[in-house]
Amino acid sequence: MNYRRLGRSGLQISELSVGSWVTYGNQVDHRLARESLAAARDHGVNFFDNAEVYAKGQSEAIMGRALKELAWPRVDYVVSTKFFFGLNQAPNQHQTLNRKYLHNAIDGSLARLQLDYVDLVFCHRPDPHTPIEETVWAMSDIIARGKALYWGTSEWSADEIRAAHEIAERHHLRKPVMEQPEYNLLHRKRVEREYARLYEDIGLGLTTWSPLASGLLTGKYRNGVPEGSRAQVQGYEWLRERLTDAGRNGIVGRLAEVSDDLGCTLAQLSIAWILKNPHVSTVLTGASRTEQIRENMKAVEIVGKLTPEVMERIEAIVGKVAA
Amino acid sequence: MNYRRLGRSGLQISELSVGSWVTYGNQVDHRLARESLAAARDHGVNFFDNAEVYAKGQSEAIMGRALKELAWPRVDYVVSTKFFFGLNQAPNQHQTLNRKYLHNAIDGSLARLQLDYVDLVFCHRPDPHTPIEETVWAMSDIIARGKALYWGTSEWSADEIRAAHEIAERHHLRKPVMEQPEYNLLHRKRVEREYARLYEDIGLGLTTWSPLASGLLTGKYRNGVPEGSRAQVQGYEWLRERLTDAGRNGIVGRLAEVSDDLGCTLAQLSIAWILKNPHVSTVLTGASRTEQIRENMKAVEIVGKLTPEVMERIEAIVGKVAA
Amino acid sequence: MNYRRLGRSGLQISELSVGSWVTYGNQVDHRLARESLAAARDHGVNFFDNAEVYAKGQSEAIMGRALKELAWPRVDYVVSTKFFFGLNQAPNQHQTLNRKYLHNAIDGSLARLQLDYVDLVFCHRPDPHTPIEETVWAMSDIIARGKALYWGTSEWSADEIRAAHEIAERHHLRKPVMEQPEYNLLHRKRVEREYARLYEDIGLGLTTWSPLASGLLTGKYRNGVPEGSRAQVQGYEWLRERLTDAGRNGIVGRLAEVSDDLGCTLAQLSIAWILKNPHVSTVLTGASRTEQIRENMKAVEIVGKLTPEVMERIEAIVGKVAA
Amino acid sequence: MNYRRLGRSGLQISELSVGSWVTYGNQVDHRLARESLAAARDHGVNFFDNAEVYAKGQSEAIMGRALKELAWPRVDYVVSTKFFFGLNQAPNQHQTLNRKYLHNAIDGSLARLQLDYVDLVFCHRPDPHTPIEETVWAMSDIIARGKALYWGTSEWSADEIRAAHEIAERHHLRKPVMEQPEYNLLHRKRVEREYARLYEDIGLGLTTWSPLASGLLTGKYRNGVPEGSRAQVQGYEWLRERLTDAGRNGIVGRLAEVSDDLGCTLAQLSIAWILKNPHVSTVLTGASRTEQIRENMKAVEIVGKLTPEVMERIEAIVGKVAA
Repeated sequence: MNYRRLGRSGLQISELSVGSWVTYGNQVDHRLARESLAAARDHGVNFFDNAEVYAKGQSEAIMGRALKELAWPRVDYVVSTKFFFGLNQAPNQHQTLNRKYLHNAIDGSLARLQLDYVDLVFCHRPDPHTPIEETVWAMSDIIARGKALYWGTSEWSADEIRAAHEIAERHHLRKPVMEQPEYNLLHRKRVEREYARLYEDIGLGLTTWSPLASGLLTGKYRNGVPEGSRAQVQGYEWLRERLTDAGRNGIVGRLAEVSDDLGCTLAQLSIAWILKNPHVSTVLTGASRTEQIRENMKAVEIVGKLTPEVMERIEAIVGKVAA
Repeated sequence: MNYRRLGRSGLQISELSVGSWVTYGNQVDHRLARESLAAARDHGVNFFDNAEVYAKGQSEAIMGRALKELAWPRVDYVVSTKFFFGLNQAPNQHQTLNRKYLHNAIDGSLARLQLDYVDLVFCHRPDPHTPIEETVWAMSDIIARGKALYWGTSEWSADEIRAAHEIAERHHLRKPVMEQPEYNLLHRKRVEREYARLYEDIGLGLTTWSPLASGLLTGKYRNGVPEGSRAQVQGYEWLRERLTDAGRNGIVGRLAEVSDDLGCTLAQLSIAWILKNPHVSTVLTGASRTEQIRENMKAVEIVGKLTPEVMERIEAIVGKVAA
Repeated sequence: MNYRRLGRSGLQISELSVGSWVTYGNQVDHRLARESLAAARDHGVNFFDNAEVYAKGQSEAIMGRALKELAWPRVDYVVSTKFFFGLNQAPNQHQTLNRKYLHNAIDGSLARLQLDYVDLVFCHRPDPHTPIEETVWAMSDIIARGKALYWGTSEWSADEIRAAHEIAERHHLRKPVMEQPEYNLLHRKRVEREYARLYEDIGLGLTTWSPLASGLLTGKYRNGVPEGSRAQVQGYEWLRERLTDAGRNGIVGRLAEVSDDLGCTLAQLSIAWILKNPHVSTVLTGASRTEQIRENMKAVEIVGKLTPEVMERIEAIVGKVAA
Repeated sequence: MNYRRLGRSGLQISELSVGSWVTYGNQVDHRLARESLAAARDHGVNFFDNAEVYAKGQSEAIMGRALKELAWPRVDYVVSTKFFFGLNQAPNQHQTLNRKYLHNAIDGSLARLQLDYVDLVFCHRPDPHTPIEETVWAMSDIIARGKALYWGTSEWSADEIRAAHEIAERHHLRKPVMEQPEYNLLHRKRVEREYARLYEDIGLGLTTWSPLASGLLTGKYRNGVPEGSRAQVQGYEWLRERLTDAGRNGIVGRLAEVSDDLGCTLAQLSIAWILKNPHVSTVLTGASRTEQIRENMKAVEIVGKLTPEVMERIEAIVGKVAA
């Protein structure tokens, strides 16, 4: 496993990492979570991603219990959480980044995770109803109080990220250092175009999510939705339509030819392709089964096979559709 | 119940809220306070206003005990307190906003309220004998120490509010975000004229008090002071004269015609009229009786009836007298 | 008793206050200290001055024990201490204002005083061997940590005070608000000339010491050093020469004629004369005997007798000798 | 023993000090450490240098236990530690100055040292993979939290030191005040040329290490490596080659003639020569044996013998080889 800096920060994270989205609490119990964390750690993974909203707090609770039992030294691993969606629909607890919500949220997450601090704390989405300055102050306070070490954003626009950076610079507060965008072969515009200037100007790091486009890039939806897949989990019906789109699955089919030629799975190719982007600090992968983790980790070995010729062949396939 | 942002901050508060002024400690005991808080909460109210000076600290103690028994999650509700008048006449404890007073006052209030923090803390009046810079530092420290989330002012001049904002901006301290002015059909100049530039320039929010002009806008003083009214509470003799002024009660009579035509009480009309002002974040209403709370809450439904024509009719009645 | 603002700060202190210099630990035991504090408080005194070096820490311990037994509400009174001389001759503990010394000193003083915070903390002298910036940071940290509320200097030059103010302004740290200079009828130049611009420019407050010029202005040294006076305390031999100077005692004699004409003691006249200076926030007086406190407090009543004519008569006597 | 200011800071440290490098944990047990600390203290030494990496944490543990048993008042002595190398090879624990490492490292060191704070904390080497701004924030936070009093660098370039200073100045953070460079008769360029402007511009202080060039300047390697010397300690094989270089030992021989003429050892001459440099705050000397400490301390008496003529004679010998 290689380690990369989180943007221009000094933090070293494994280029492949493991997220608890969807999987924990819904599909994964505490014992399986411990096993998958241990398997990932064995492969050199040191970053485990989480969010308050995942499984309504259960994801954090499960990861926290698993980490406690694993009893690794705290400095060995990097844990994140994210705030915005909240745990219910009440005012100041739902889709907000205001000071009151963040002030309460961090303590709740630390309690569920059974940790003194998280390494990374993300604003899970932008909040148009809270001034960025209020959010920057609140995130900076979380770091000043030792409850987190670095803060960043997820799915914020380039303009919003730069605004947060400038406010922190002007008021001498802690600056955001990373963003967690969706990024994969079928979803590229934000990372490759919108954020382009931010890498150089403010040293933005990326912890990308959805490397397989919600599973589409495994190719398993080419013939409809199989039993037991994520698209059948209750509450994720919206995924089903996206995953069975004929045009997209056509592209997936052509990409599968490339992975076949390279002697790897399409999932491995898809992950390796993301790692070719030097602005990516780490690729978040799923964690529902230990076997899946082992398969994903092999993507690291595929990166070397992505020669300029192979990259051009891929570009010819996906170039026109990348969102 | 609708929720509004507290000025340009991200905090969401119910457009009608409940204050403990006069009522708690004097007219309301702890059991009634719990009932009225619960009734307000049932109507969607999430903001409960208080002040150190109300009933000499008893108001905070009663609300604190009631909140403890109600045992709502802390993030669910917004509590305020205010400092300036103090609990006795001694130096540094009376009509001051100096660092020593504020440093002690916040701890006293939190103890009486049995809370770790208040959401909002107000400078209850301006203090000409303390530099605004000293007060801004002290309020900012209260927030930095996690004892309050937002701070603001009550009955400060526009110039004083702007001065506080600029000092905080220059020294990178926490800025004031709200003001608590008197505002009603008979008292409009400060909110509508003096503060006009502040809404845009610094995003000032308003938590207005005295929507019924101390009861005058209920119409019940048109024939003198009835038994059991606030104007008969000992220590509020000054109110009696104001409430029985013939000219003002004449206006009240004409406003009552409007409310009759709309099929609501004059109190409901008066509250609804305040809600038409988009700069108002919340209207503080009384809390002495559960029935009164239920009546006041109906004002929300009247807002839609205040068409441009009705607003003009009201303006024609009160326009010339508004202070 | 009148109360004055401490310079431009919002803190209200009694215009006469009581210091523990010389007296506590040497001449005054704990029981007498409690009596004299109580007597001063009865006269309206709310400020009690101290310093780490007074009686090598014993003065703080005695005042702390007395305050504990008196059990006044903490907000009622103002306590100070001062740092520079240290409790022994070792490096970083002696005549320094460096961060290490100040970091340790405040905790030591609070322990001896049995208090959570002191109201005022002074840099007892300037330290030419520590950058003012280091001292400003250290003092500002003491306030940020809630261990003191205001900080100032004692016997610093105008240039040094202004430098400290400017550093705090530039780095957004807590600014010094007061200075404790020697000031009396025979020692006027620093307060009246050197600091002249500071009152307006930075709002400097003064807590003046030695109102009686070490007792010279009681007139009791006109015929040599009486038994039991301060000039006979061991370690204060240097005072004896100063107190028995013939020229100065000549002036004292002429001033005594003025106080005789006003029907007060020379000490009362001397203290009242200081109170005529509007830049003085409080005059520190001795506290060795309850009777002495009662006598000094009467100076407040003399101020009104200091008409322009009397002030000119005094000026004619002391004008040429004022240092 | 003389005391010097640590650069332009107000901290007073003994011009000779004792470091635990190499010796503790490898050659020195806890009982010997206590003896050598006590012997140094008897000679007036008040500064004891340490680092996390020395003997992989054992050096701190031994010094901590010795200090605890000696039970000196905390304000009496100055202790340092240094961070960069880490205690293992894992990411964020090895050759880094990122926030995560530093956040954990300080707590680990304080636990091993059994102290509430260290006086000095150094960035043991520059870290090209962490922005200096991130490190300045992290070091400043350590001081803000009261876990250290002053921070500095070790073997940083002048450019890096100045960058750290400017970032702290701009963002109003705690500035670095000292650097710990290698400095001796055979290694002079960085201290004398590269840092030249920093002494005046930012008041940089120096705590120099390797006064005897790893023992070369004792002259004992002129005839090869003797038994029991540091160059035979396992892991320090690289030293052996350096220490037995013929050209360098030729110079050492000529310097020994000077020390013979002055009636002192070459080691004493070498240490005294460093003390002649006014930019040096303290010379760190070894602490493996009490006898060695006593010998080194005599260097203080030699300084006076280093007349301009002697200094020129030395310059003529080493001038051309100084690195």
